Amino acid sequence: MAGTNSERILLAEGPAVILVEPQLGENIGMVARAMANFGLAELRLVNPRDGWPNEKAEAAAAKADHVIAGTTVFATLEEAVADLNFVYATTARNRDGFKPVRAPVTAAATLRARFGAGEKTGILFGRERWGLTNEEVALADEIVTFPVNPAFASLNIAQAVLLMSYEWMKSGMEDVEATPFQQVDQKPATKSQLLGMIEQVEEALDARNYFHPLTKKPKMIDNLRAVLSRPGFTEPEISLLRGVFTSLDRFSRRWAKGKGPQSGEGQDDGNDTASE
Amino acid sequence: MAGTNSERILLAEGPAVILVEPQLGENIGMVARAMANFGLAELRLVNPRDGWPNEKAEAAAAKADHVIAGTTVFATLEEAVADLNFVYATTARNRDGFKPVRAPVTAAATLRARFGAGEKTGILFGRERWGLTNEEVALADEIVTFPVNPAFASLNIAQAVLLMSYEWMKSGMEDVEATPFQQVDQKPATKSQLLGMIEQVEEALDARNYFHPLTKKPKMIDNLRAVLSRPGFTEPEISLLRGVFTSLDRFSRRWAKGKGPQSGEGQDDGNDTASE
Repeated sequence: MAGTNSERILLAEGPAVILVEPQLGENIGMVARAMANFGLAELRLVNPRDGWPNEKAEAAAAKADHVIAGTTVFATLEEAVADLNFVYATTARNRDGFKPVRAPVTAAATLRARFGAGEKTGILFGRERWGLTNEEVALADEIVTFPVNPAFASLNIAQAVLLMSYEWMKSGMEDVEATPFQQVDQKPATKSQLLGMIEQVEEALDARNYFHPLTKKPKMIDNLRAVLSRPGFTEPEISLLRGVFTSLDRFSRRWAKGKGPQSGEGQDDGNDTASE
Repeated sequence: MAGTNSERILLAEGPAVILVEPQLGENIGMVARAMANFGLAELRLVNPRDGWPNEKAEAAAAKADHVIAGTTVFATLEEAVADLNFVYATTARNRDGFKPVRAPVTAAATLRARFGAGEKTGILFGRERWGLTNEEVALADEIVTFPVNPAFASLNIAQAVLLMSYEWMKSGMEDVEATPFQQVDQKPATKSQLLGMIEQVEEALDARNYFHPLTKKPKMIDNLRAVLSRPGFTEPEISLLRGVFTSLDRFSRRWAKGKGPQSGEGQDDGNDTASE
């Protein structure tokens, strides 16, 4: 989807993303893009199969050039995590069971708190085909795992990175329900404005003998008012609707054809309108 | 990452994912996979560029066969949403501003509530290059947008679907911090077990004149106890460590070489240990 505003400042903070023996350049590029989407910038590769730099990675990164340019390569995982204070390992499988297992929401909050305390952190992601070895997981402090459908748990590596990056971004938001842009203020009109419209409609309908038989009129008016009140129309909406009703009230379709107004027109359409 | 358990029941409920004029089969396949990861199953395509079925989509779906097999194709978006009660449009750009704009967390909660009330819902995703038209967004009830890095806001379509699918899954969890598997119960040992180990170490160190000079002994013991208490060792960990200390206590490296024990050994290593 479009919407990038390249004039705004690039975010670049937070945990390093560490890919252990990634195989496909396309995946590395997609990882870089996912990181850039959610404000991460430090990518580390352990022994990438096709070496580095990698043209396919650059192509798939979709302009996440700053992530690609800053990517560092290590021969071993031990070297890749040497300067870090706290490391998560991502895994979909249960391991030896002696490390704490966290949900992405929890892990992101921990990473955010450690970032705030000046620690250097990282997240390990395993090979495309079979993830991390137990020895690699053992180098991490804690495990993070995703709440996937148990019947279909295999996450693409770029998607796993995307989810952690997304939770990282959310962990820095005061309100996870905030949005970067908002609806125009949609205050409902005052009751006086609403009633003005309702009375206009009722008068116009009354003139056409819509409320027929008269014994049903109170219930029909209740229903009409319920339907017109429920949406919480705004002042501009009320203005638009009053224009519509005024136009409809001016002459009926039959009158326009020279047949003159007819009483009772439309009376069968309103009786069953449900109030809510 | 691995970990799929195909014996478990496939989840299949929730909103339809509606791709408007998708271009690349690979993306459609990745969308199917992302849906399957988080329990969505109903994929609808509006006028896909390369027709349907699509071999590249099937290859990229990574065994999300049930999603691919159930995919339906429509000529227009109006037909694709005809049976739905409530529809979200995903967009990274501000639009006319007259529709409510929601974060993924909020949208997922709304979709979950409407699903619970028996409504049929859907989420619209636009073309790879330029998203949804304003006319297409107008067919939706509300807008959902992602909290992306403003400097790098362009999300791949499969990643946008992944994030909404992930939030859908989370919206159905009682506790978003729950994980599908857990650490083995790691209860700290009792204080008696901890003190047993500490006293063993102190006695062994005392025998080597480690606490030197004696005026510093109380502070050195405080520090030692702080360091050994802080980790909250479990009972098996205490057992392992006591074995280590017993082995170290049996004879020193120099004794093993036939030189005999030497008092004061290691005394320079402990004085500066910080307590916490």
